[in-house]
Amino acid sequence: MLYVIGLGLSDETDITVKGLEAVKKSERVYLEAYTSILTVGKEKLEEYYGKPVIVADREMVESDSDSILANADTIDVSFLVVGDPYGATTHTDLVIRAREMGIPVQVVHNASIMNAVGACGLQLYNFGQTISIVFFTDTWRPDSFYDRIKENMDLGLHTLCLLDIKVKEQSIENLARGRKIYEPPRYMTVNQAVEQLLEIEENREQGICTPESLAIGCARIGTATQKIVAGSLSQLLDVDFGGPLHSLVLVGSRMHDMEADFIREFAFDKVSFDDLVKKHHEKNK
Amino acid sequence: MLYVIGLGLSDETDITVKGLEAVKKSERVYLEAYTSILTVGKEKLEEYYGKPVIVADREMVESDSDSILANADTIDVSFLVVGDPYGATTHTDLVIRAREMGIPVQVVHNASIMNAVGACGLQLYNFGQTISIVFFTDTWRPDSFYDRIKENMDLGLHTLCLLDIKVKEQSIENLARGRKIYEPPRYMTVNQAVEQLLEIEENREQGICTPESLAIGCARIGTATQKIVAGSLSQLLDVDFGGPLHSLVLVGSRMHDMEADFIREFAFDKVSFDDLVKKHHEKNK
Repeated sequence: MLYVIGLGLSDETDITVKGLEAVKKSERVYLEAYTSILTVGKEKLEEYYGKPVIVADREMVESDSDSILANADTIDVSFLVVGDPYGATTHTDLVIRAREMGIPVQVVHNASIMNAVGACGLQLYNFGQTISIVFFTDTWRPDSFYDRIKENMDLGLHTLCLLDIKVKEQSIENLARGRKIYEPPRYMTVNQAVEQLLEIEENREQGICTPESLAIGCARIGTATQKIVAGSLSQLLDVDFGGPLHSLVLVGSRMHDMEADFIREFAFDKVSFDDLVKKHHEKNK
Repeated sequence: MLYVIGLGLSDETDITVKGLEAVKKSERVYLEAYTSILTVGKEKLEEYYGKPVIVADREMVESDSDSILANADTIDVSFLVVGDPYGATTHTDLVIRAREMGIPVQVVHNASIMNAVGACGLQLYNFGQTISIVFFTDTWRPDSFYDRIKENMDLGLHTLCLLDIKVKEQSIENLARGRKIYEPPRYMTVNQAVEQLLEIEENREQGICTPESLAIGCARIGTATQKIVAGSLSQLLDVDFGGPLHSLVLVGSRMHDMEADFIREFAFDKVSFDDLVKKHHEKNK
C-alpha cells in the first residue's frame, strides 16, 4: 500500500492519528520537501516517528518515482506531504503512476492553506480561483496572474495568492557547469509579493492591486506563531511578518459585514481599516 | 482556552494528534453536529476520547454560545467541528464571541471538503467560487447559485457544489404548534442535486448544466468507502452513491489533459467519457 499522507501546516503533531498509524507500520517513509515546509525539520519527524525519513526532492519525485514505489504492492510505504496531498500536481502524478503499477493507494487528508486561509476571517465560498506569484528575475517577470485576479475582482471574489518557494535551486553558473551545488532556500514574503503586485499594477493600470487595495497578509497559518495583518497594500509593504510560509489574500468587493468584523481584529490600524473598508465598498458599488 | 478543533472527514482517527491532546485535557467537549457528519457517531467519539461529548445543535451554538464558553478563560473547553473549523459561518461567530469575552482561542485545522475535493482529480487552483444547493420545497425553489455557476463557467473554472443537510428540522405543523419534535436528518444526494440543476437549466436555458454537461459526483470523500464517478449530468442522475455526505463538481473548460487523465479512472464508462471530454473542449473553445 502507498499511503499519501498530509502533514497539515505546523509541526509533527498536526498529522492525523490515522496518518501516524500508517507511518508507524510503513517500511519506508518519504518526505516531500520542495512545495511547502513545516515549522519542524526531518530530524524532529524521525524522532517522533521512531524511524528514518527519506527526503524526496523534486528530481526524485518527478524522475525517479519508481524508487519510491518499489515493492509498494507488497509492503507499506508512506509519502508525506506538507498540507494536504492534493495541494500540488506532482503528488497527483505519483498517484497516477502507482495506479499504473497496480499499487493500492490510500490518501490521508489534512488541512492545507487552501482551506486554513479561512483563519483570516474571509469565508471560503467567497474566494475565486487561487493564483501563484513567482519570484521576479531580471529577465523573467511573469504577470499573467494579474488577469486571474481581475477575473476574481470583476466577480467581487477574494483571491488567495500562494507565494513562491525556491528549494534546491542551482545558480545559472552551477547549472551550466553541471555542479550539483544548491542555493539556500528562498520563501517569498508578503512584502515581496506586494512589491511585485504594485509593479505589475503600474504597468497594467487596471486598478486591480493599487497601493490602496484592501488585502490580508498571512504568515505561518495554523501554527502557534501565526500572524495575520489586514490593510492596504501600501501598509502591508513594510510589515514584518517573520519567517515562512507567507501568503496574501486580495479582498473582493463581496466582502460582507461579518467578514469585515472578523478581519478588523487583524487591522494594521483600526481607524484606517474602517476607512479602507468604506472606500472598498464605495469603489466596488 | 477554547480549542476549536477540526475532526476531518471520516472517523475518530482523522483528528490530529494536536487536536486529540487538546480534547484529552478539556473539561468540556462539544460536538457541532448540524453542518456536517463523520462516519461515526457521538458514542464512538466518547469511547475514543474517554470522556463525555455534548452534542451542540444549531440553537445552542447560535443562541446559547455563552454556555459553551462558560469559564473557558480558566479551564480548557473543546469545540469539535467536522472538517475544518472555518468551513461554516457559525463557528466564526463563536470565535468572535470568545474574543469579546477575552477568552483565548486556539484553532486546530484539518481537512475539509474545500480542499479534499482535490481527490476527484481536478486541481484546486482551477476552482471558482463554491456554491451550496439547498433542498427544493413545493414553494421555495431557489436558483441564484445558477448565476454563480455561470460566472465560474464563463471563466472556465470548476464549481464545487456543497449539498444541503437538514438536521433537527421541525415540520411546519410541529413548528406552528411549538412542539420540539424533529424530522429524521436528510442529506442531499448527488442524484437530487443533479435533478434540481437540470430543472433550473430548463427554466434558465443558458446551457450551464445541461444533461450533457461534464460533472463529478463525490460521496464520502476521505473515507474508506469514498465513491467518485465522472460523467454527464444525465449519467450521474441514476448512479447509486450510497450514504452521505455527497458533493458535486461541475467541470469547467480550463480542465487540462492531466486532470482529464486522472478523472478518467472514475468515468461512468470510459468510452463515453472520452467522447464527453472531447465535446467539453469543443463546446468551450
